[in-house]
Amino acid sequence: MDDLHDVRRALAEGRASATELLADHRRAAARPEMAHTFLVGFWEQAQAAARAADLARTAGLPCGPLAGVAVSVKALFDVAGQVTTAGSKVLADAPPATSDAAVVTRLRAAGALLVGHTNMTEFAFSGVGWNPHHGTPRNMGTHDSDPTPRIPGGSSSGAATSVAGDACWVGLGSDTGGSIRIPAALQGLVGFKNTAGLTPLQGAVPLSTTLDTACAMTRSVRDAVVVHEVLAQRKVRFSSRPLEAWRFAIPRRVMLDNLDPGVARAFEAAVQRLSREGARVQEIELPELDELASLQSAGGFSAAESWSWHRRLLAERRGDYDPRVAQRIERGSTMSAADYIELMHGRRAWIDRMADATAAFDALLSPTVPITAPPIAAIEHDDAEFFRINALLLRNTSVVNMLDGCALSLPCHEPGALPVGLMVWSGALCDDAVLEAGLLIEDALRTGAR
Amino acid sequence: MDDLHDVRRALAEGRASATELLADHRRAAARPEMAHTFLVGFWEQAQAAARAADLARTAGLPCGPLAGVAVSVKALFDVAGQVTTAGSKVLADAPPATSDAAVVTRLRAAGALLVGHTNMTEFAFSGVGWNPHHGTPRNMGTHDSDPTPRIPGGSSSGAATSVAGDACWVGLGSDTGGSIRIPAALQGLVGFKNTAGLTPLQGAVPLSTTLDTACAMTRSVRDAVVVHEVLAQRKVRFSSRPLEAWRFAIPRRVMLDNLDPGVARAFEAAVQRLSREGARVQEIELPELDELASLQSAGGFSAAESWSWHRRLLAERRGDYDPRVAQRIERGSTMSAADYIELMHGRRAWIDRMADATAAFDALLSPTVPITAPPIAAIEHDDAEFFRINALLLRNTSVVNMLDGCALSLPCHEPGALPVGLMVWSGALCDDAVLEAGLLIEDALRTGAR
Repeated sequence: MDDLHDVRRALAEGRASATELLADHRRAAARPEMAHTFLVGFWEQAQAAARAADLARTAGLPCGPLAGVAVSVKALFDVAGQVTTAGSKVLADAPPATSDAAVVTRLRAAGALLVGHTNMTEFAFSGVGWNPHHGTPRNMGTHDSDPTPRIPGGSSSGAATSVAGDACWVGLGSDTGGSIRIPAALQGLVGFKNTAGLTPLQGAVPLSTTLDTACAMTRSVRDAVVVHEVLAQRKVRFSSRPLEAWRFAIPRRVMLDNLDPGVARAFEAAVQRLSREGARVQEIELPELDELASLQSAGGFSAAESWSWHRRLLAERRGDYDPRVAQRIERGSTMSAADYIELMHGRRAWIDRMADATAAFDALLSPTVPITAPPIAAIEHDDAEFFRINALLLRNTSVVNMLDGCALSLPCHEPGALPVGLMVWSGALCDDAVLEAGLLIEDALRTGAR
Repeated sequence: MDDLHDVRRALAEGRASATELLADHRRAAARPEMAHTFLVGFWEQAQAAARAADLARTAGLPCGPLAGVAVSVKALFDVAGQVTTAGSKVLADAPPATSDAAVVTRLRAAGALLVGHTNMTEFAFSGVGWNPHHGTPRNMGTHDSDPTPRIPGGSSSGAATSVAGDACWVGLGSDTGGSIRIPAALQGLVGFKNTAGLTPLQGAVPLSTTLDTACAMTRSVRDAVVVHEVLAQRKVRFSSRPLEAWRFAIPRRVMLDNLDPGVARAFEAAVQRLSREGARVQEIELPELDELASLQSAGGFSAAESWSWHRRLLAERRGDYDPRVAQRIERGSTMSAADYIELMHGRRAWIDRMADATAAFDALLSPTVPITAPPIAAIEHDDAEFFRINALLLRNTSVVNMLDGCALSLPCHEPGALPVGLMVWSGALCDDAVLEAGLLIEDALRTGAR
């Protein structure tokens, strides 16, 4: 079975039971290489839910789109009865959540089996996925081809590892600067960051209230469509145009700088394949991308908004924070209200200029991340290298968050190579077009691989 | 003719022409007591528009809801070909606007004759209406009964004086903390501040991008309905319930503190009249109103947002600002991004608590302003008294802006007394209920006066 569509069919046809499938997931999660993926497992509850799902299906009751499907939950979303630590030490003694986060409610109502709270960068800061309190899950997308433990990508590190390591089919996470798409790209998964406002954030520990998006990782683009429909409680609608009718732009500025050779090779091969299959692909300059640095020169949303949330907790318990995280939050302390207000208005004007500059295209194409996953050892004790890698990881993905846009990352590397993500992206509320383009591109790249 | 409904009927029946009516307005505006009301008159253009309106009407062409009706425009809204000074000296040498502000476009499309840019507090700061650069228009609502020049109320000072002094039927203005409702209350007019998001702000000099609302003053509530429909490009819908079916609450906290005897008398008489006519009116405590002070203890939206807009201009030309305005803007310079972000979130939570606390009522009733208009001489040279009066003027009205709500001020004083406003108010998007309640209350108070 390749994705949750296969699972749904197997369940519907009685070729599998949710109970058996869950037992397989649990065994996969228990392997030593899956260490640090889950902060807490909800396996007993999930088993009860699996039995209930099997009973309901056998009795012929109508069932939700995720009935009997294993889903992991990033540890910043409330799950009733569990402590929401957001990967930190300072929230470990908080009282358990009394109700589910809004997106968790939606997953449960769709029939999902919630298998556990996944590990993450403390408070979702950084795209590396490193966590000094709970250990760092290893990259399961590189595990079969390479013995070196590589970074999982973050901040939804355990979410990606849980899916790539077969502990579930869907990893619920969040994306503020790339936290879904970076680990998806580095572990060979599909990650879809919808337009922020389409999915609710109630019951989630915030990083940036302006940029945070609740979304998920899956095994395929068609799975991403199903999960988005559940999380956003909306129906995705397709235009049903063939690939030849789509116009894609590849922005040259910023997005193509300093690519790892493996990333450059995979991205170019994918673009050539798309062109051969009939898509109209055109490089554009898009100098608006150069403006992002000066737009955020007085500070960005994440630092100011997380400083607002953390400042009292930091004053009391700074020693319990990862110093690399505390340091990034504290950068928000010097930002003035006027700079923040200018950033809001500057962002709005920049979004308008970007919309004008890209109006002739259905979607944009870029490498999700300019590098492949480096070894964990490279960043563990070297702060400068950690921050250099982190900036590279976030560079392309964070453009879409500033745009208030949507983006899909899907794998585009050769089998056996280190995973590389291709990002299909666009502005706000173009989610359906991005998903439809993703389906066509996924199909074209598979044709190429055959 | 009492209001623009009478004008529309007279025009439709051929008993008046727009050209004659405009000439009357122009004569009224030229009276010495109307000095400082207009910063610039657009009388020649208005005359051409009046002739065109008369021609179109005579020819039987369909005409807009404001066809041939004189309307004044607060000097912070762009009018194509005019310099938008916002009552300041520092913008006097700015280039003329190349197009109309969005609400001005809507007025023009509805057939309005734009008669001039009205005076205002510099950059809309203060509810007094005092302007040291352009002079202070006098209160025309007290002019007939009292020889003392009294403050017009602000910041839409000239807007109110232009309507109260018969230079037009509608005064377009803005309301950030009460700038429509305060001058309406002090000059015996109707002022309607709609939910902010319902009317566009493109082409308006901002004071607070969070709180600013484009709206207007009129002679009657039914006029307010027509003008709101034009400014918001929407249809107002009424429930058609009788007055007996309405439940009104009078909040005790804050709103009833330190009322002038004249205000207390008029407000109580109005409430008694409403009760006699069958309305259900109940006093409530509403302790949530006490929270507003601490919510804004680190600064409010207006200071931070205007500092963000003005800081470069102030650095260059502080000497050209009214020092009382510059001082208030500069209070925004010390606010941090974190405090601003907390204010945004704190406001949202407070709005929710207010909605819970007032859910049992159709609308709330309060005195619009706790005092009647003081003499201009009392505040002209006394900064402490100026700021004391200003704080009193804004106290009740600004609650509604923080609530993201809507409010109508309508006159409730005895003929010959200094004007007093009764404010009917509610939360966001309850505009139609507030307008409908206003119509019923206006009618009940007129019945009482007969």
